[in-house]
Amino acid sequence: LAEGPSDELRARLRDLHEADMGDLLEALPAEARVRLVETLGADFDFTALTELDETDRVGLLSHLPPLMVAEGIRTLESDDAVYILEDLDADDKAAILAHIPAPERVALQRSLDYPEESAGRRMQTDFIAVPPFWTVGRVLDYVQQTDDLPETFYEVFVVDPAYHLMGAVPLDRLLRTKRSVLVTAVKTERVQVVKASEDQEEVARTFERYNLVSAPVVDDAGRLVGVMTIDDVVDVIQEEADEDLRALAGVGSDEELSDTVAYTAKSRLPWLVVNLGTAFLAASIIDLFAVSIEKMVALAVLMPIVASMGGNAGNQTMTVAVRALATRDLGSHNARRIVLREVLVGLANGLALACLLGLIAALWFGNWQLGGVIACALVINMLAAGLFGILIPLTVHYFRQDPAVASGVFVTTVTDTVGFFAFLGLASLWFHLG
Amino acid sequence: LAEGPSDELRARLRDLHEADMGDLLEALPAEARVRLVETLGADFDFTALTELDETDRVGLLSHLPPLMVAEGIRTLESDDAVYILEDLDADDKAAILAHIPAPERVALQRSLDYPEESAGRRMQTDFIAVPPFWTVGRVLDYVQQTDDLPETFYEVFVVDPAYHLMGAVPLDRLLRTKRSVLVTAVKTERVQVVKASEDQEEVARTFERYNLVSAPVVDDAGRLVGVMTIDDVVDVIQEEADEDLRALAGVGSDEELSDTVAYTAKSRLPWLVVNLGTAFLAASIIDLFAVSIEKMVALAVLMPIVASMGGNAGNQTMTVAVRALATRDLGSHNARRIVLREVLVGLANGLALACLLGLIAALWFGNWQLGGVIACALVINMLAAGLFGILIPLTVHYFRQDPAVASGVFVTTVTDTVGFFAFLGLASLWFHLG
Repeated sequence: LAEGPSDELRARLRDLHEADMGDLLEALPAEARVRLVETLGADFDFTALTELDETDRVGLLSHLPPLMVAEGIRTLESDDAVYILEDLDADDKAAILAHIPAPERVALQRSLDYPEESAGRRMQTDFIAVPPFWTVGRVLDYVQQTDDLPETFYEVFVVDPAYHLMGAVPLDRLLRTKRSVLVTAVKTERVQVVKASEDQEEVARTFERYNLVSAPVVDDAGRLVGVMTIDDVVDVIQEEADEDLRALAGVGSDEELSDTVAYTAKSRLPWLVVNLGTAFLAASIIDLFAVSIEKMVALAVLMPIVASMGGNAGNQTMTVAVRALATRDLGSHNARRIVLREVLVGLANGLALACLLGLIAALWFGNWQLGGVIACALVINMLAAGLFGILIPLTVHYFRQDPAVASGVFVTTVTDTVGFFAFLGLASLWFHLG
Repeated sequence: LAEGPSDELRARLRDLHEADMGDLLEALPAEARVRLVETLGADFDFTALTELDETDRVGLLSHLPPLMVAEGIRTLESDDAVYILEDLDADDKAAILAHIPAPERVALQRSLDYPEESAGRRMQTDFIAVPPFWTVGRVLDYVQQTDDLPETFYEVFVVDPAYHLMGAVPLDRLLRTKRSVLVTAVKTERVQVVKASEDQEEVARTFERYNLVSAPVVDDAGRLVGVMTIDDVVDVIQEEADEDLRALAGVGSDEELSDTVAYTAKSRLPWLVVNLGTAFLAASIIDLFAVSIEKMVALAVLMPIVASMGGNAGNQTMTVAVRALATRDLGSHNARRIVLREVLVGLANGLALACLLGLIAALWFGNWQLGGVIACALVINMLAAGLFGILIPLTVHYFRQDPAVASGVFVTTVTDTVGFFAFLGLASLWFHLG
C-alpha cells in the first residue's frame, strides 16, 4: 500500500462492500486512510464514509481536497451526502458545497437547514412523484425510461400540481395492477406521513409501530419534500436504544471507541463528580450515627449491604421504567398500576431477602436482635427502592427531560440515604446506642 | 360494548390499524378482550395479536375456540402466524393446527420446527421464485396474473429446478429493465443469504451492516425456504438492545409491564440474591478491619464513598464494553488498545477525583493524612474499575457467554472489595490501627 496499490489490489478494493471498506478504513492509522482514499480516487465509494465513527470521518475529510470530496459526495444518495456533511465545521462544509453545482447544492442545503436529528436531515430528496391522472401503465413506462431515478425506491407518490401528497402506491401493487387503471384508484388511502421537522426518534417510532419500509416526508405546508427509508430508521433505533443504555450508566451518548483518553475521561467526569456529591450525602448520614458505630462496629460491617441491595432493586425498577417510557408502553393510562406493582414487588422481594439477610447476620454476629433490625431496615429500603425507582423516572419524564439521563443519580441517592438511615437509626433506637 | 357493538362501532373497529387495535386490546380487561374478538368474528384482524404482550396474547388465545383461531391465523402472513403460535402450549397449538388444511399446516409446522429465535421462525414462507430462463416481461406478467402472492415483497428470486438460490432481482430494477431481458442478466450477483438455523441476532446484524430490506432464507442444503423482511428485523434489533439493557440491570429479558407482581418479583429475585452474596463478601472485607474502625470511626463514614465511586466508574466502562461487543465494534483487533484506554481513563479520572475527595475529607475531619489516604485508595479503586470494567466483559465474551448478563456482578464485586480493602488497609497501615 505504501508504494501505491497494484492493479489487482485496486480492483479488489473497488469490489469491497461499503461496510467492509468502512471497517478497513477504521483499522488503518489516520494518515494511511487519507492515502488510501486519494490513491483510489474516483474508484473510492464515499458511501463507506457513513460507516466510520464521527471523529474518524471528520478527520479524514478535513485532509482530503474539497473538490475531490464534492465529486465523491455528488455520487451519493442525498441522505448519505447530508450525513457526511452535517458534522463538518462550517468552513470545510462551505468549501465542499462550493464545488457542487447549484441544483444539487440547493437540495443539500435545504436538508442541512433542518434541525439536527430531524427527519429533514435523514430524508432522501430523490423520489418519484406522479400526477393523479396518470395510469399505472404510464407510471411503469416513466420508471423504465427515466434515467435520473433514486437508487432504490419502494413506492411511487401521487401528488397534486402544488406537490401536496395525495397518496402512495407500493411497487408490488403497481406490478400487480392492470396498465389501464388510474394510479388514484390503487393508491393507499391512509399514508403515514412524516414531517420534515419531526425528531428522528418520533419517526423511528412511527416506522416500528406501523411496520413501514418507506414514508413520505412533507414540509410545514404539506408539500412532499423527500422520503425516509427503513435503512436510515434502523440506525436511529439502534442509536436511541444505545443512548438510553449509556445515559443510565452515565456515559455520554456521543462517546465512541475511537475517542482519545483525554476526551473520554473528560466526558465521563461530570457524572462521577455528581456521584461524589451523592456519596458525601450518604456519608453525612453515617456520620450522624458515628457514636452508635463506635459502640457497635458490626453496624459498619453490615450497613453497606442494606444500601447496596436497595440500589440494585431501585436500578431494576428504574431500568424497566426508563425503557417503557421510551417505547411509550408506560404512560398516564397505566402509571398508577405500574407504581403499585413496583411497590409490591419491592415489598415481596424485601420480605424474602430480609429473612435471608437477617438470618445470616444473626448467625454471623451471634445476635438475633441485630438480625431483626437489619431485616426491618432492608424491607424499608426495598420499599423505597420500588417506589422511587418508578416515581423518579415518571417525574423526570413529566417535566419533559430524558429519564435515562437524570434518574440514576436520584434513585441511588434515595436508596443510599434511606438504607443507611433506616439501618443505623433502627439499631441506635433498639440498642439504645444514641 | 357490553350489549354487542352497534354497526357503526363495528365498522370503526374494523377500520382500526392493527397497531391501534393491539393498543385497544391491551387497555381492556382480559374478559372484555375475548368478548371483543368474538363479537368482531371474521372482521377481527389477527395481525393485531402480534402487537400484544406475550402473556396477554397467550391468555386471550386460550379463551377463543381453536377453529376461530385457526381461521384467523390462515389469513395472516406465515411469519405472523408462527409468531402467534410459537408461545402457545403444545395442546392449544395442536388443537389449532388440526383445523388448518394440510399444505398450510405443513409449512407452519416446518417453521415451528426451527429453534426459537432463529431465522426459520421469523421468515415468511411465501415468496416469488422464478427459473433463470424467464424474461423480465414474463416475470412481470406472472406477478400481474397470479393471485396467490405474498402481501408485500421487495425482490424476486431466481432459482434452479432444485430451488437452489441463483440470485435476486429487486422490484425497482425489474421495473427499470426492458421486458425482453433475461432475469439472469439483471439479478444481483452478491446476495446476502440467511441460514434458516441462524440466530435472529446474527440476521439483524447482517441487515444492519448491509442495509438490507429483505434477504432470502436457505436451509442447510442451500435451498430457498423463505424470506426475512426488515420489519421483522426492526423488532429484533429493538429486542436485542432491550435485552442488553435489562441484563445489565439484572432484569429478565422477558419481563413485561403486564406481568403480575408475583411473576415479576420471582424473576428479579435471583439477581438480588447473587448481589446479596457479593455484598456479604464486601462486608467480610470490612470485618477484617473492625478494630481499625473502632479506633477511627471516620473510616466507616468515608469508606462507602471509595466503593461507590469505583462502582460507578466500573459501570461506565462495562456498559461501553458490553455494547461495543454486541455491535462487534470491540473485538480481538482492538481489545488491547481499548483496555489500555480504559485503564488510562480510570487513572486520569481517579487522579482528578482523588484531589477533590482528599481535600473535602481532610477539611471535614480536620485530618490531612486521612485526606491523603482516601485519595490514594480512590486512585487504586478507579484503576481497578477501568481495568476490570473492560477485562471482565471481554473474558465473559471470550467464553461465549453474554457479557451483559454476567459482567455486572463481577465488576461490582471487584470495585467493592478493592475499594474497602484499599481504603481500610492503607488507613490501618498509615495510622498503625491494626
